[in-house]
Amino acid sequence: MRVGIDAMGGDQAPAPQVQGALAARELLGAEDRIVLVGREEPIRRLLDDADGDWSERIEIRHAPDVIGMDDPPVETLRARPGSSVAVMIEMHRDGELDACISAGNTGAFVAAAQMRLRRLRGVHRPGIAIITPTYRGPVAVCDVGANVNCRPKHLYQYAVMASEYVKAVAGIAEPRVALLSIGEEDAKGNELVRGAHEMLRDDPHIHFVGNVESRDLFGGVCDVLACEGFVGNVVLKLMEGMAESVIEAILSELSASMPDQVTMIRAAAGEILAKYDFNEYGGAPLLGVAGICIIAHGASNERGIMNAVRVAGNFATGGVNERIVELLAAGQGTAP
Amino acid sequence: MRVGIDAMGGDQAPAPQVQGALAARELLGAEDRIVLVGREEPIRRLLDDADGDWSERIEIRHAPDVIGMDDPPVETLRARPGSSVAVMIEMHRDGELDACISAGNTGAFVAAAQMRLRRLRGVHRPGIAIITPTYRGPVAVCDVGANVNCRPKHLYQYAVMASEYVKAVAGIAEPRVALLSIGEEDAKGNELVRGAHEMLRDDPHIHFVGNVESRDLFGGVCDVLACEGFVGNVVLKLMEGMAESVIEAILSELSASMPDQVTMIRAAAGEILAKYDFNEYGGAPLLGVAGICIIAHGASNERGIMNAVRVAGNFATGGVNERIVELLAAGQGTAP
Repeated sequence: MRVGIDAMGGDQAPAPQVQGALAARELLGAEDRIVLVGREEPIRRLLDDADGDWSERIEIRHAPDVIGMDDPPVETLRARPGSSVAVMIEMHRDGELDACISAGNTGAFVAAAQMRLRRLRGVHRPGIAIITPTYRGPVAVCDVGANVNCRPKHLYQYAVMASEYVKAVAGIAEPRVALLSIGEEDAKGNELVRGAHEMLRDDPHIHFVGNVESRDLFGGVCDVLACEGFVGNVVLKLMEGMAESVIEAILSELSASMPDQVTMIRAAAGEILAKYDFNEYGGAPLLGVAGICIIAHGASNERGIMNAVRVAGNFATGGVNERIVELLAAGQGTAP
Repeated sequence: MRVGIDAMGGDQAPAPQVQGALAARELLGAEDRIVLVGREEPIRRLLDDADGDWSERIEIRHAPDVIGMDDPPVETLRARPGSSVAVMIEMHRDGELDACISAGNTGAFVAAAQMRLRRLRGVHRPGIAIITPTYRGPVAVCDVGANVNCRPKHLYQYAVMASEYVKAVAGIAEPRVALLSIGEEDAKGNELVRGAHEMLRDDPHIHFVGNVESRDLFGGVCDVLACEGFVGNVVLKLMEGMAESVIEAILSELSASMPDQVTMIRAAAGEILAKYDFNEYGGAPLLGVAGICIIAHGASNERGIMNAVRVAGNFATGGVNERIVELLAAGQGTAP
């Protein structure tokens, strides 16, 4: 397969993107290639600095423009058709790439994918599924911000799509699917949740375990959590902020009471943070588009980018998109 | 003032409620009284078990029925007009109580208050404001679940009401007010947030600092965070669940690597958890009703109930309701 990487997208781009591409070569088969999309000159310089011949596995596709992390997504996409992310998505649409990865402006990447790629047959609206690490195992949360408003059928489809995704990338044979709500009883929540609840309950292809509250995310009760994009994004950012905040707090308390043990305490905190490290998971797919689009964290390092390539590979070999189309056709999720 | 306590509401009721009432006597002035509402016989027995004469400061009002923590709120309220929470709210409505507190079924308490108390002049919809402890200081989040759908004017009013509340109970002279969104730029978020943003930006009585992301809750950037009730409830429960989960994780890592220090590590973790302890804050008011209704955590202990009495007192002496009416009349928040 041919995997595109937006070389100009990310807080420190293009260095971690190029290093990640070099590291990811070990994941590739003989026919596989990585295509770095972006400004040729700095990319080539970084590649040439590395040991050995990179050109056997890596190609460069020049794209003159860059979209910054804080640029307004849709406007900038329109104004800069030669941006690395726009060029990469067009290559994907035209069959020159089998998957693409960007750690750049998420809004621009998602907007480009939604505008220029078709949707999978039966899918009403794409959603971003992110695997959130918890101490009792990973949970795929979908949607975390592709769309800020949705209806029950969209929530239902997020659940179906994310369920197929975790089968392929986390090796969970029969993922337990839950709906994020504000009371565990079926009657609680809002109209959106109640509507999606009925659809999921009635679908024999989904292992639906019902509504859960946000605190249950840490209880090991589900493998997939479907929610509306605004709420999902709030959950995601809150977890990131809180993990840092609580660990900072406990380090400060412990360092004060046990000054001789600071090194050991910091090491233990490092173990915890590693379990919450987004680089482990490589990236989050935009599910529902006719393609493979992996959104990596803006601060992804070399390992993060390499793991995003791994996710793209698992996504392709797992046939996630094909399974989503089959399941939506078999279930009730394609009802208008 | 006369403060009612729902003696039958709470995970362990009536014991912590009665103990809390006894402890709260030290907060009372000569004319103040606490009224325990619920089944007279068990309440009286618990009071009589305590040292000294309780009857100088505490009264009992018999109510024959109880609403359980998991009973469907509205249906059960209708079916049991003699429940402690219904009787207490009626006493409040009729002027027999100046404030009321329940650690019982939140839905039933909120529904009873919304059905039987008037709204403050100008208020469209009440909201629950909870003070969430963070390591960089408390933040009042409103609404955390009184209503699951809202429009911009409701969100605006939550911000105004919670701002007045934190002035009175947290002693913050000019609270920094923010809107919870999923991007810090003004144009991001959803229609609800964009609408409320304009109203808050244009109100000279509010110290509006703009939109914040959920991770900023821990960054000390705002004192009040306004959000829709579904999202607010998700945030609240996620924080509870995650504080426990992260601390459990770090204790487990540290205890493995430093087995001799387990006692000291647990003590430090206790310090952290104390900062996140809901009992410190006593309870969350239902803002916007013509009355003082303090929702305490179901697991409140004696100290939690006593602190809820303190919150009710600060709320009354701070003139929160009067200030809310004035501010809404001065601002634009009463527009239909």
